[in-house]
Order: sequence, then structure tokens, then C-alpha cells
Amino acid sequence: MKHANKYQRTYFNVENAPMRWIKKDYVDHAPIWCSVDLRDGNQSLIIPMSLEEKLEFFKMLVKVGFKEIEVGFPAASETEYEFLRALIDQNLIPDDVTIQVLTQAREHIIRKTFDALKGAKKAIVHLYNSTSVAQREQVFKKSKEEIIQIAVDGAKLIKSIADETKGNYQFEYSPESFTQTEMDFAADICNAVIDVLKPTPENKVIINLPVTVQVSMPHVYANQIEYMCDHLHERENIIVSLHPHNDRGCGVADSEMGLLAGADRIEGTLFGNGERTGNVDIITLAMNMYSQGVEPNLDFTNIPEIIEVYERVTRMHVYERSPYSGELVFAAFSGSHQDAIAKGMKWREEKQLDTWTVPYLPVDPQDVGRQYDGGVIRINSQSGKGGIGYLLEQKYGYDTPKEMREDIGYLMKGISDHRHQELKSDEILEIFKQEYFNKTMPIHMLDYHFVRTNEVMVTLTIEMNGEKRDIVGRGNGRLDAVSNAITSSLNINYKDLLYKEHALTKGSTSQAVAYVGIHDEKGLMYWGAGIHDDIIAASVIALFSAVNRLMGGK
Amino acid sequence: MKHANKYQRTYFNVENAPMRWIKKDYVDHAPIWCSVDLRDGNQSLIIPMSLEEKLEFFKMLVKVGFKEIEVGFPAASETEYEFLRALIDQNLIPDDVTIQVLTQAREHIIRKTFDALKGAKKAIVHLYNSTSVAQREQVFKKSKEEIIQIAVDGAKLIKSIADETKGNYQFEYSPESFTQTEMDFAADICNAVIDVLKPTPENKVIINLPVTVQVSMPHVYANQIEYMCDHLHERENIIVSLHPHNDRGCGVADSEMGLLAGADRIEGTLFGNGERTGNVDIITLAMNMYSQGVEPNLDFTNIPEIIEVYERVTRMHVYERSPYSGELVFAAFSGSHQDAIAKGMKWREEKQLDTWTVPYLPVDPQDVGRQYDGGVIRINSQSGKGGIGYLLEQKYGYDTPKEMREDIGYLMKGISDHRHQELKSDEILEIFKQEYFNKTMPIHMLDYHFVRTNEVMVTLTIEMNGEKRDIVGRGNGRLDAVSNAITSSLNINYKDLLYKEHALTKGSTSQAVAYVGIHDEKGLMYWGAGIHDDIIAASVIALFSAVNRLMGGK
Repeated sequence: MKHANKYQRTYFNVENAPMRWIKKDYVDHAPIWCSVDLRDGNQSLIIPMSLEEKLEFFKMLVKVGFKEIEVGFPAASETEYEFLRALIDQNLIPDDVTIQVLTQAREHIIRKTFDALKGAKKAIVHLYNSTSVAQREQVFKKSKEEIIQIAVDGAKLIKSIADETKGNYQFEYSPESFTQTEMDFAADICNAVIDVLKPTPENKVIINLPVTVQVSMPHVYANQIEYMCDHLHERENIIVSLHPHNDRGCGVADSEMGLLAGADRIEGTLFGNGERTGNVDIITLAMNMYSQGVEPNLDFTNIPEIIEVYERVTRMHVYERSPYSGELVFAAFSGSHQDAIAKGMKWREEKQLDTWTVPYLPVDPQDVGRQYDGGVIRINSQSGKGGIGYLLEQKYGYDTPKEMREDIGYLMKGISDHRHQELKSDEILEIFKQEYFNKTMPIHMLDYHFVRTNEVMVTLTIEMNGEKRDIVGRGNGRLDAVSNAITSSLNINYKDLLYKEHALTKGSTSQAVAYVGIHDEKGLMYWGAGIHDDIIAASVIALFSAVNRLMGGK
Repeated sequence: MKHANKYQRTYFNVENAPMRWIKKDYVDHAPIWCSVDLRDGNQSLIIPMSLEEKLEFFKMLVKVGFKEIEVGFPAASETEYEFLRALIDQNLIPDDVTIQVLTQAREHIIRKTFDALKGAKKAIVHLYNSTSVAQREQVFKKSKEEIIQIAVDGAKLIKSIADETKGNYQFEYSPESFTQTEMDFAADICNAVIDVLKPTPENKVIINLPVTVQVSMPHVYANQIEYMCDHLHERENIIVSLHPHNDRGCGVADSEMGLLAGADRIEGTLFGNGERTGNVDIITLAMNMYSQGVEPNLDFTNIPEIIEVYERVTRMHVYERSPYSGELVFAAFSGSHQDAIAKGMKWREEKQLDTWTVPYLPVDPQDVGRQYDGGVIRINSQSGKGGIGYLLEQKYGYDTPKEMREDIGYLMKGISDHRHQELKSDEILEIFKQEYFNKTMPIHMLDYHFVRTNEVMVTLTIEMNGEKRDIVGRGNGRLDAVSNAITSSLNINYKDLLYKEHALTKGSTSQAVAYVGIHDEKGLMYWGAGIHDDIIAASVIALFSAVNRLMGGK
């Protein structure tokens, strides 16, 4: 591309970073979660949420288990002010949930913010100012000292107004655009604020280190977080919080590595909604932990329900490939994946495993409210025998012979390819039944009668070419006798008969199913199936179905 | 959530990993790129692409600059066979592009694969088998030795058939499900294959180490890649390739860290299409490099065109927040972001900077074929004065006074909030003109006449309450005289008049615009504007507009 040379790296990595964090390889406990859906998420929507929509979203966040929820910028907009008032006046904030409000460091705005909070049992008041080189130079046109002064003045103002106002207030400070700030300066400004706010073990201060714009690889961010954890005053009374955006597609990695590096808290949103590429997706973070056996302290056992509310009130769409939540993330269309999933599910059943080990499915879809049926093994022209066989067996109870599954697989793939459509499971069942079962053309078997002596003798009444006749055969078993009747009396040649039968346990009636495969003279296989109350009848019908299919009939 | 204890970590981190890679902090050169859109991407679609759609996609990939393109599994499906034949027979493969085909290690499949390749100048033949614990136990039910034997037999077969077939063939081997495989075993199986294939400096072997399912944090994967680079036979004749999926939302981080750890090549797709959560998005990887001044060797200067083709042929939708490509990733609705962007753009213009430094925009939207207009600063109830002012100035040439921008901002936010809609730029212009310009109620100024002596004297003809009359005023300047006429003759009180004028340079005609702000007795500001061929007329009209607005008129 033409203009690569117009870009430079704008982050400040930590020189000789200790990188203690790199020795850990997973996040072993849940952080404090803070949802910023109603603030950062809302301000990125084409149509921001209405008051009613925000109330519904808030209730959902509480239900999911968030204990800290940023509810907006009440001094900046009438809607956000009213929303906060509605939460307080309608008593919608549970005792164990703390709301958080954003404010700039200007006196009348801070006063309006505390007005808006009147009656809240507790709240986090979140102050921020921009600290990056670009913001200092281009937007604020101020020196480092002047930028620190803005933060310090703001902190003093908030603290003094909070001190004279009833309620329990916790403070949060964000050096906005942290990732493009020199690390020593970031530590200086946070420490100046900490020194003003004077955190205690009972009232810790939250220092939030946002990836306002993602400009580096995640391990650089982890080094930065480790540096801050090492350099913040009164670290033991500080909650280090992360607020990653996703401009480089690394919001999740930033969050997880930042947690390894010492952070205590994550600000993010459901489905990664938020400015531009979005905030980090808290569902992914929580489910990543869950998938490694770590309790996330958030409840995503019914993601479809969350999606319904989210899509309705934000007017956004959950991306099909969004981890754990997207419509397609548990779907397997390809034959080899379907086969492995089917075998993995069977393995789990046979071994009665408590642990989840199924290939290609990092978590059990049922754990997030998704069903196997229709969502996992999906059939199109890329699919294979394993998946289709599994579907017929699991959903409808047809445990087809291994050799027959190949035939069914090619049939379904071909139809899907030809129709240029996915085949739904009920369509697959219909095609399966129509293609293999109870075929009566050209030979319609009307009746049979067995006599057993030292061998079996059968008399069959058939109709063929409009003509009714009886044929007779003998054999070691019933099916053998019928087969001999067909080959000898009707002069039809086939060989190597394969046979399988089972009771059909799904559905309301108890019927028997039989499958028969025969080879023509060239070795090509033809399968037929029969279903009947009587297992003998089912097998005879299956054989006639196979013979009729070999004869090109219907 | 209830079942966290049913999950375990299923990856194998490297003990005492040297982690040389962690000292690097960015990817400093482009890897070899291989698109797997037509194979992995295609097999994950609800409706796979038709032959014609694949041909169109292939041509687009070539245009973007891919030199290696996996085109399918030609022995597994008729469509994929025909697609490969069409590419070769219609001579659609440029000399500098190598196609890649996937095959299993079975003789008739390999022979059919080479049949399908007949006439291709060169090709990469890609062999794979599954190596993870779960796949070995549950799916293949084979020991490690038996799994190695599958790979070795396949490699021997491919090599011998390639040796007896015309054409230039390169080989690729993937230990599928690599990330859930023990590292020593992964090295063993790859080395067994390398020993069979005997790579040379002229014909290197590709060892592809897929994140078939993402089960660890990215730095664990980087350790694994570093381990493999350290333990592969004939490393100098091996191209180490990565194929990350995105189950934990870390496909990009896996790829970038894997490159730092020594990999040479990336397999991925456009927009991260692919099984489940998708393959790694090559657009994000390439643009991440680009945004740090590294030439990616792929051309994404027209992403909207790529989106058009992609969405049409895959029937997928590019997610609104997909890095660099999503519809919303350059959009700023929030006031503070808009303000910073506007100031950053101005800074760049004033300083005539070659480098890109605009806050909140990691890359210049124009570099990927997106326009500033309508795509960056977008106006809704979250927006502010900075963005709206910038839009009126940049798009329509109205350089409104700083103090007036606040008034315009509140006006537009309110309307957007009330309508529950985003305001498009033409709507904003219309509202702006209708609200401030050339107001004639209750006072309609019909004519004016100036006489200059040692001060200015003006006679104005106005119509008010259906009655025409002349009023007279004197002052130091023209506007001062008009203002005095109004306040003295009409008994209207206001103070602290602010004034600004400029020529309107956008649009076809050259007109003058004037803005006048006045304060009522309570200190509230009222703005009016005038537009006219004559600058004096514009300013007089602006003042009357402000006065009319103060009087509650229209």
C-alpha cells in the first residue's frame, strides 16, 4: 500500500520490563467486572437507547451478575440524567450493585453529577482527562504539568464536593488515551490524583488504564500494566482497572494479559459493543475462563435470551462469528468436523464422562443455552456421512449401518449442492424416508407367508407390471428365503446382502426398522429400508425396497 | 455458572520456554500470506460458493496481492474439482501465484488430487492428519506411533506420486489440532514427515501449525511456535506457517505473537471468515502492520469494493465493528471524540504533516477507501459542538464562531434525541439554515441606506406587525449603527454583540456569510446568520436574524 511511511508506532513500551506476568499461562480467577454498556456502548450506537431501553438493559446486566455498572454521563445529557434518576427513584439498584457515573473535572458539571446521584446508597464517580502526546499537543495544547493540574484540580473538586454530600462515594480516575502516554508520565499523573484522593483499605481508589485506542501488541500493554502496578502509590489501596478497545482486534488478549500483569478489574461490554471496533467483549472473557474451569462470576447460561434483548434495544446485530455467542460458532458444516463431533459425543456418552472433551467445540453449547439439535451439525454440500448419520440417529432414532451412511451422505450433499441450500433436519428426514423406505415399484410385495420345517419356506404375493402373482423361495432364515424367491423367480441378480435392524425408540409408537444393502453385478451398492410394527415385515419390506432401487424404481 | 468444573485446560505449554520472542514488540516485516477463503472460508458458509462465485473471489484475491491461495479439496467434491479445472483450463492463475490444494493421505484421493492439478505450472499439495489427544483417543482410536505412521505413509505416497507426475509441487504438512497436541509429539510427527519429504533450499517444505481450536492464551501459542522452530529438522529449509482460528477471540494476537516467535507464513481469510468463530482476519493483520509503518504486501486501498464482492458471494455480512473494515470503525458519535478528531485534522492541515496523528483514528480512513464525509463524524444525541461545527465547516464551508457552535450543538443533539434518529449531514445543513439564517419575523428588514460622515448613519425600512416604517441609527461602524437603530427605535434590549463573517468558498456561487450573537438581559445568547452576495447585507441580515430569534420569532 502506498502510504505505510506516514505511520509511526505511537506507544511507549517499558524498557527492561520485568515481565513477571509471562510466567503465568491463564487467568485463574475472575476480576471485578464493570459493564460500560450503558455509557461507552450507548454512545457508539447509531441510535442511542431510550430511557425505557436503558432500564431494560440495566435489569439484564443485574441479572447477568454485574456488581458495577457505568450508567452514563448524567451532567452531559438530559436523557442520562433522567435515566439515573429513574434508577434511584424507582429503587432499581440492588444493594450489592454499585452504579458508576462519568464526569469531567469542571465544578458545575461535578455538582450536577452529585445532584443526579442524590438518594443513591453508593456510587463510583469516574473522573478522566486525556494524557497522550497527541491529545496534549493537538487537542488541549497544554504541557505535561498543565495536564496533571487538570487532573489534580478535578480530583480535589470531586473529593471536596463528595465530602460535603451525603452518600458513599468511591472514586475512579482514568488517564484517557493511556496507551499513547509515556509510562513515567502516566504514573506521575495517577499518583498525583491518588495523593489527592487518599485511598484507604475501606475506600479504595480505582485507577483505570484504558486502551482508548489500541496501538500496540498485547504484551506491550501487559508490560505497561505491570509497570503501573509497580509504580502506583499505595498499590494495596488501589484497584487497577482495564478498559480495552479493539482497534487491532486484540481487546481480549489485552484484557487477559493485563490481568496476568496485575490488574484487578475489567470494564467492557456485552458482545463487545462500544466506540469504533468496540470495547472488549465481556462474554468472551468470562467464557474463556469458564472453558478452562474457572468460575467467571457472571451468568451466561442463556445467551439467546441476552441476544434478544441486546439486539432489540441497541439495534445492533450480534456477529455470526462472535465467540461463544454468534449464531455460527458451534456450527459444523464440514464432514470431517461433523464426524469428529459425532464420535466425541458418543465417546462422552459411552465413557459417562463428567468432563467436556468433544473436538471442535471448546464449550458445551448447552452451557450457554444453545441446543445441539439444529445448531451444531448442520448439513450442506460440504457435509459428510458422519454428521448426517449422527443427526438421523440422535434426533430421529435411525441408527443406519456404517456402509449405508456413505450412500446417505452423498445423496444429501448432492441435493444440497443442487438446491444451493442448507438442508434442515426435517428435510433430511423426509428425503431419507422418501428415498429408502417402503419402495413398491416396480415390485409391490402384497403379502407373505412363512412355513418353517428344517429350513424356511416363503410364499410371497407380489404385483409387478399390473400383474399379481405368487413366488416361492427357501432358505436358512426368513430373509434368506425371501431373497432366494426374488433372485430365482424374478431373475434379478444381486449379491452380498447386508442387513441391520433395530427398534425405533424415538417418537410415540414403537416400530421396527430394518435396513438391507445389496450389490449389483458391478459391485455398486443399493440400500433399502423398511419400517413396520412387525420386525419380520420391516426386513422383508427393506429387502424389496433395496431391490426396487436397484431396478431403478420408486 | 454451574458447570465450570467440567472443563480443563487442554493445551501443553512449553516448560522453561526461552521466550526470546517477547523482547520484540512489533511485527517488522510482512509474512508470506496464504488465503484459505476458498477452502476453510467456503466450508463454513451456510450456502457454499458456486463455481462462478469462487472464480470471482479468486480474481479478487489475486488483485489484493495474495501469492498463495488454497483453492479447495478437489478430490472431495465435484464442485471443487471443477473449480480447480476452470482455474487451470481458463488460464486464470498468474505466474507469480501458487495454488494450494488439501488432500487426505489415501492413495485414490491423492491420485485424484494430482489429476485435478494437471496442467498447473506449480502447486502446493497440503497433507494433514489430526494429532491432538482428543482426536487420537476419540476419533481415530490410535496410538501416537500409529498417528505418526498415517502422516509418514501419506508423505511417502504424495512424494512418490509427485515424483512421477509432471509439474512443480511443493509440500505442506499440518498436524491438525496442533494446539491440543503435546509439543514433543508435534515435533516428532513433523520431523518424521520432513525426513520423508526431504526439503531443499529450492523446494522448502511448509510446516503449518494450526490453532484448529483456540484453547490457550496467545503467549502460550507463541511459546509453542518458538519450540517448534527450535526443534524442527532442517529449519532453514522449512517455512513455518500459522493457521489460527478465533475461538477465544485471539486469532490476531496468536498470529502476531507466532510471527515474533519465528513463523514465516500466515494462513487466514478476508474479514475472518472460516469455521465457527472464523480464521484469523488477514485484513486486520495487514492493516495492523500498515498502521505501524510496515508495508504488508497486500493492497487494501479499496475495502468497500472488497466488501461488496465478499458479501455478495459468501452471503455473509461484514461485522460493523470489524477492525479497519466495519462500517462503524471510523465513526465518532460522541462529542469529545468528534472534537478531538476535528482538532487533530486541523492540526495536520496547519502543520502540513506527512505523518498521521489524528486522535481516535488509528489509520487514515481514506487509506482504505473510506471517506471522511459521512463516515467519521456522525451526528446523534451523543454528539457535540466540535463535531457538528467541523462538519458544517469541512463539508459546507460554514466556519461558525466558537461560541455559536455550542448553541448549534445543543440544537442538533436535541433534535436527534427527540426524533430518535441519526442526523445526516444534509439534514444538519438544512436545520442549521432554517434555524439561524435570514429570519424575518417579527421584524422584516426591507431596505437600508448608509451615509458616512465622521460616523455612520443608517436609515432602515422595516415591516413589523403588518406596518412599514423607517428607523434611523448612528454608530462607529455600519453594524453598530444598525444595532443602535434597533435598540433605540424599537426598544429592544440586548448587549455584548459578537460578530464574525467570511466568504463562503464551498458551492458554486461566491457569497458572504455573517454570524451575529447577542445576549438578552439574563445573559442568554441568541445567534443569527445572514447570507448574501454583499457582505454588508449579510451582516445586517444576520443581526436582524439574531434579534428575531431573541424575540421568539421565525
